[in-house]
Amino acid sequence: MTREARESCGLFGVHGVRDAARMTYFGLYAQQHRGEESAGIVSADGETLHAHVDVGLVTDVFGSEHLDRLRGTVAIGHVRYGTAGGTDVRNAQPLVVDYAAGKIAIAHNGNLIEANRMRDEFEAHGSIFHTTTDTELIVHMLARPKNVMVDEEGVKYTLSSLKGAFCLLMLTPEKLIAARDPNGFRPLVLGRVRSKGWVVCSETCALDLVKARYIRDVAPGEIVFIDKKGLRSETFCVKRRVQPHHCIFEQVYFARPDSRVFGDVVHEVRLALGANLAKEHPVEADVVVSVPDSGNSGAIGYARASGIPYDRGFIRNHYVGRTFINPRQSDRITGADVKLNPVKSVIRGKRVVVVDDSIIRGTTSRGRIRMLRAAGAKEVHMRISCPPTRHACYYGIDFPTTTELIAANYTVEEIRDELELDSLGYLSV
Amino acid sequence: MTREARESCGLFGVHGVRDAARMTYFGLYAQQHRGEESAGIVSADGETLHAHVDVGLVTDVFGSEHLDRLRGTVAIGHVRYGTAGGTDVRNAQPLVVDYAAGKIAIAHNGNLIEANRMRDEFEAHGSIFHTTTDTELIVHMLARPKNVMVDEEGVKYTLSSLKGAFCLLMLTPEKLIAARDPNGFRPLVLGRVRSKGWVVCSETCALDLVKARYIRDVAPGEIVFIDKKGLRSETFCVKRRVQPHHCIFEQVYFARPDSRVFGDVVHEVRLALGANLAKEHPVEADVVVSVPDSGNSGAIGYARASGIPYDRGFIRNHYVGRTFINPRQSDRITGADVKLNPVKSVIRGKRVVVVDDSIIRGTTSRGRIRMLRAAGAKEVHMRISCPPTRHACYYGIDFPTTTELIAANYTVEEIRDELELDSLGYLSV
Amino acid sequence: MTREARESCGLFGVHGVRDAARMTYFGLYAQQHRGEESAGIVSADGETLHAHVDVGLVTDVFGSEHLDRLRGTVAIGHVRYGTAGGTDVRNAQPLVVDYAAGKIAIAHNGNLIEANRMRDEFEAHGSIFHTTTDTELIVHMLARPKNVMVDEEGVKYTLSSLKGAFCLLMLTPEKLIAARDPNGFRPLVLGRVRSKGWVVCSETCALDLVKARYIRDVAPGEIVFIDKKGLRSETFCVKRRVQPHHCIFEQVYFARPDSRVFGDVVHEVRLALGANLAKEHPVEADVVVSVPDSGNSGAIGYARASGIPYDRGFIRNHYVGRTFINPRQSDRITGADVKLNPVKSVIRGKRVVVVDDSIIRGTTSRGRIRMLRAAGAKEVHMRISCPPTRHACYYGIDFPTTTELIAANYTVEEIRDELELDSLGYLSV
Amino acid sequence: MTREARESCGLFGVHGVRDAARMTYFGLYAQQHRGEESAGIVSADGETLHAHVDVGLVTDVFGSEHLDRLRGTVAIGHVRYGTAGGTDVRNAQPLVVDYAAGKIAIAHNGNLIEANRMRDEFEAHGSIFHTTTDTELIVHMLARPKNVMVDEEGVKYTLSSLKGAFCLLMLTPEKLIAARDPNGFRPLVLGRVRSKGWVVCSETCALDLVKARYIRDVAPGEIVFIDKKGLRSETFCVKRRVQPHHCIFEQVYFARPDSRVFGDVVHEVRLALGANLAKEHPVEADVVVSVPDSGNSGAIGYARASGIPYDRGFIRNHYVGRTFINPRQSDRITGADVKLNPVKSVIRGKRVVVVDDSIIRGTTSRGRIRMLRAAGAKEVHMRISCPPTRHACYYGIDFPTTTELIAANYTVEEIRDELELDSLGYLSV
Repeated sequence: MTREARESCGLFGVHGVRDAARMTYFGLYAQQHRGEESAGIVSADGETLHAHVDVGLVTDVFGSEHLDRLRGTVAIGHVRYGTAGGTDVRNAQPLVVDYAAGKIAIAHNGNLIEANRMRDEFEAHGSIFHTTTDTELIVHMLARPKNVMVDEEGVKYTLSSLKGAFCLLMLTPEKLIAARDPNGFRPLVLGRVRSKGWVVCSETCALDLVKARYIRDVAPGEIVFIDKKGLRSETFCVKRRVQPHHCIFEQVYFARPDSRVFGDVVHEVRLALGANLAKEHPVEADVVVSVPDSGNSGAIGYARASGIPYDRGFIRNHYVGRTFINPRQSDRITGADVKLNPVKSVIRGKRVVVVDDSIIRGTTSRGRIRMLRAAGAKEVHMRISCPPTRHACYYGIDFPTTTELIAANYTVEEIRDELELDSLGYLSV
Repeated sequence: MTREARESCGLFGVHGVRDAARMTYFGLYAQQHRGEESAGIVSADGETLHAHVDVGLVTDVFGSEHLDRLRGTVAIGHVRYGTAGGTDVRNAQPLVVDYAAGKIAIAHNGNLIEANRMRDEFEAHGSIFHTTTDTELIVHMLARPKNVMVDEEGVKYTLSSLKGAFCLLMLTPEKLIAARDPNGFRPLVLGRVRSKGWVVCSETCALDLVKARYIRDVAPGEIVFIDKKGLRSETFCVKRRVQPHHCIFEQVYFARPDSRVFGDVVHEVRLALGANLAKEHPVEADVVVSVPDSGNSGAIGYARASGIPYDRGFIRNHYVGRTFINPRQSDRITGADVKLNPVKSVIRGKRVVVVDDSIIRGTTSRGRIRMLRAAGAKEVHMRISCPPTRHACYYGIDFPTTTELIAANYTVEEIRDELELDSLGYLSV
Repeated sequence: MTREARESCGLFGVHGVRDAARMTYFGLYAQQHRGEESAGIVSADGETLHAHVDVGLVTDVFGSEHLDRLRGTVAIGHVRYGTAGGTDVRNAQPLVVDYAAGKIAIAHNGNLIEANRMRDEFEAHGSIFHTTTDTELIVHMLARPKNVMVDEEGVKYTLSSLKGAFCLLMLTPEKLIAARDPNGFRPLVLGRVRSKGWVVCSETCALDLVKARYIRDVAPGEIVFIDKKGLRSETFCVKRRVQPHHCIFEQVYFARPDSRVFGDVVHEVRLALGANLAKEHPVEADVVVSVPDSGNSGAIGYARASGIPYDRGFIRNHYVGRTFINPRQSDRITGADVKLNPVKSVIRGKRVVVVDDSIIRGTTSRGRIRMLRAAGAKEVHMRISCPPTRHACYYGIDFPTTTELIAANYTVEEIRDELELDSLGYLSV
Repeated sequence: MTREARESCGLFGVHGVRDAARMTYFGLYAQQHRGEESAGIVSADGETLHAHVDVGLVTDVFGSEHLDRLRGTVAIGHVRYGTAGGTDVRNAQPLVVDYAAGKIAIAHNGNLIEANRMRDEFEAHGSIFHTTTDTELIVHMLARPKNVMVDEEGVKYTLSSLKGAFCLLMLTPEKLIAARDPNGFRPLVLGRVRSKGWVVCSETCALDLVKARYIRDVAPGEIVFIDKKGLRSETFCVKRRVQPHHCIFEQVYFARPDSRVFGDVVHEVRLALGANLAKEHPVEADVVVSVPDSGNSGAIGYARASGIPYDRGFIRNHYVGRTFINPRQSDRITGADVKLNPVKSVIRGKRVVVVDDSIIRGTTSRGRIRMLRAAGAKEVHMRISCPPTRHACYYGIDFPTTTELIAANYTVEEIRDELELDSLGYLSV
């Protein structure tokens, strides 16, 4: 799956440590793969909030001077991939606003349903919107007079009326609040750090980096309040008849392989998918290679299950970044060339199985396959550790629209033709 | 008057020219002295708005790539000095929001009265605030359902209920709106550019730079709508019993000497103030010098009226900027030293009259006077082309609080002592 | 092997293509792993040379505006790792100077022997040195009157008197010259690009990216002149009794796995080293993992030869860069933590073989091993696909001094203890 | 005179103070008007030299982190305007090299005669040149074996053989050396700072800023050695028959008005030139205005001598900088418009005398005159406080070539026509 389509947002919150902002910086850094558009941290010092939010990578947005100003023992942070809303700095999160109950900061991972309708309703009642994010809509709901009156009850009431995918971190000058939608679409985990600190974040790889211990997942429909008196857990979803509905893309694409998501280590999940793929779509071949790094775990799983040797078919350039100069047309150098180069000695004369986690538009995959052909592959068999991506998902993944998804418009056989493959196999559902 | 206290905000709007954003860039550049904190331009292309706003000087905030993206034949821009609200990028203007009637951008020069009370009321009804500016408050008022229903009438109704100082530029995808408060505290002028373009801006020096012709001042209580059909002027202030009440600081401090403000050329006003000062506070002296550049016009006026020769007593370093390295304490080099150096040959052995436009805290003035003493002045007589600044002004000038104003806490005689002057004279009211 | 010790310099030259500088940019980008300190390109347009050289990565140093100014159909470029000379911009290459024969640019990969003695001799004769590089010494030799007189003969004479490791690219306004020392310590390859262009560079991965065809290695002792009349090859080393002496570190550490170096594909060499390692140091274990990315090929080789399954034991953070904020001491977060995270499910309860390409100081390796222990490894067996690094190499690799090399001061058994390993095996010579 | 033509280089050296580099920073800052191309500081700590040199303004080139690294109690600095050599960073000064006697840094203000011939001679003997500056030539001369042998005698011998204009600062790890050419073309002054420090710099305005006391000018043909034992003065010019020959452009254009140059305060010199101009070229007029800031002192002198009132005819935009966006052609906004705006009330209907210090190409002056006409001037009389600039000067001023100088190609009467003036008067020699 290409970078454009694979990311989500990342959340990190911590309560009860010195230099909470600095720890949040590392927590975001570990989850940078979940969003490269913008980064932000808001800290609370008991009296007020301090914020720094900007577009760019965590290491671009924050310098020591910023972290020094973000005083306090509580902080929340966010890295964003634009699921809704463009790349405007005003869409960067956490969002910090004043409302009747004082100051609040809010960070959101997910996508609401019926957001546009609700937005229209608010506007009809005189509300103004500074951003195009769902997050601002949530703040408007929180700020409604009836909610504000009752504080924590108001928050719970607001959350119970939201539809869609959401993991939320909220920060007031005194309190850190974390919540996860009743379906549990997106991951949110709870950990302990140092002697008595609490951490809430999207992926366990952030716990690992800040030396926090994984305690448990925040449950679907759970809201957690953390303040000086400690942690309190409640359920905001009155009738708990909702089915948990984890987003499979988290395990297949988004999360880092070393993270534990929805209770399973992502790498293990992908190994198993690769093994299943080998069973569903076996082929006679000489070597199994992956499209780095998205196909790495799946390829190892496929190789183990099939008995075909695993090898490194492509080498990734470590310096691939954002500010690359575009080659002129005549150079015929593509972004794909810059990122990966095939290892000819591994490929030449071989029947190659190449494993990846998805095919979105098809253009990137075709480039990879042509590279393998140019490197001398005798046969190229592609295996995708996921079912065909046939429709855009409305729960927080910003896929290309359906018309752009190759699997939405062609049969597997047509795609095989289009990509000039000897065989193509998707994992079944 | 020190830089910190002398600035206000600058507005520039243009309708009906190709590259409206580029012209706005120049219009803001000419008015940079009105605000160095942030700069922003929003353009309209008939369908939507395009915005770029950031902290910093106009030349720092905008590159060609930004201007190229700000498409359209209509644009408004703003340079800001923080009259209310800190240096956060979220306070930078124009503010762009979505509300029931669509998109609107708004830029404001002035300060509202009772802003905090109104803000509290809005919050009590569920509104949220992203910034600490009065401008956002105006947007909330505009967005109230009853206003929105009736469009232009709604805008007029909102303006009629505002109290305080305001010049406003508003931009929708189709229309440019300009308005000035009924007292006319702050300046706003109307000009024509090229064959059929309209310009609205704070100072005429911006008209000069973009080669626009000055037509007239926007009248107190006037609202101007400019769209494809042309310009329409209306009055939003139902009962026109309000007294015009121009802010004298505009002519004394804020405006560029080459601008025409409230009908008079600023330089001429300051010449006359200097001449009056010579009549009210004559002194036997050998030379009249100014504190550059704030006292330049006043000093020439004083010299002419008194017959004492004018000379250059201080030379200004042209490279004074913002990112200066602080000298260590031991170097005894002050910011004042870096900015100005006395011309010893002009000062030595002379009885010197030094003219400035204000004394705020007194520390800067004392530094200048010590420089003159160190350069060998026999006597130092300070003349201020303005009455003592005794209280902070609530109409848009961010003076130090009253406790910091030297004239609020000391008599003229005490200030003379404090500044180690042979004599001190303020202009009477 | 740590980054600090593993890099060398990278060369790229091209003759006979439009936009030679732009192609050189890509050629350097592909070889960025050979040097991150500085980057430079010099182009020739038939009349003069155009240069841009600065400290930083290729993508930091060059923007489109620079490439546009580097006109001409011939260019050479250099990425540098400071084998000698600090990080001063003046040491960045190519070096461009004026001398009696006109302008010349020169780029060098390697280290000369007796450089300091020769430098002293030149200084005693009145020469001045602007840099601390060996490259400047070569230029002084080229500029000696007797060399200049005879042009190409002079260049050959100069090269024949150099001792040590050197691959050189030289550029005059009309001619590109490439040479390799008689021992052939460092790699240099020749390729063709587009219809009639020539490329000379350090590694074949650069040929791949610019779509050039590999022709052959530049031979030890060979000098190649490329100008409008085409390519001429000569031998500058009169008596060809010198033994070829390839630097094994090129294949073991420096080069990209997809490059062909000294005739062999690097990945294949490393696979074979891993396989030999499995034969020399077998162990009963459950999983083979690599230290990414330096140990990847070796680990696959070890796994294949030993029959123990290969798996991903560590996940690398893709965002590891240079401008990272140092965590405070109290955070106990190390640079190693930021770079890699173990996959607990792969490690827990397992007997782990971890493969890397070297142990330099030992501190980094100890960090990795502790990570594996913390992740629950039952046993940790380290295998190094190279003999112990016992002394600094004087042919162009800037190793830590001998006192810092752990293998120079301890026996293998002592290192095993120091690193808290269950077993440790180095490849024999 | 336009900025392009008016600048020279600025030198600052200090011996015997803590934080010598920091004081040098301020000394350069005060002399920034002498060169905006590049800035550099080299410090000596008794053992070695520390350098930081780059293109840009002093405030752009240096941050606290640089000054902190420039350790030692002795330092020299340089700001450069490219009298010879382009804007390449390699031409920035001070130049730091190794030669037989060790490390030396050198900074130069002036232009040598016969530099190209000497350069060719050096190249013929095998020397290489990294820069296109005369400074490097001086270093080559210093490094010749016969000079090096005798140290201070060698320096004196080298200086005695130089022809042209030069003020030099040299720095070795132990010693600061300052020298001025026998004609004394360029200024160089000596001061004392704090209890026992010495300062050597181009203009006294730098002494003022660092709180140093002016002692005397360095004499033409004098060389000063400052080390731990104190200051020693010698004469390097054996036969002292040379005529002092001060560059009049220093007083007319280059220097800051508050500086004392060649014994006179620059502002006073310019007042006197303005007064002479009034005597030589009287005119009936209503107002005298200056082209800011180059004509300010001259205009005051003219006004006083003629009895015609002085007023501010143009207002200068304080934000004029380097990174300005070019207006599109259609905007008809020129760089001159951006820099200055006429004060219409001062000009309208008046007979205006406008004073400047030079006319170089004529294009800038014509722009100013047209502004005055557009502002309603009845008559425009230009007065230039300097003789016609008829030929490029070869002693360190980088004038446009003779063909571009308007006065070299036209009579005064023709220039008057060309500039559309009512009258034009140059000062006689």
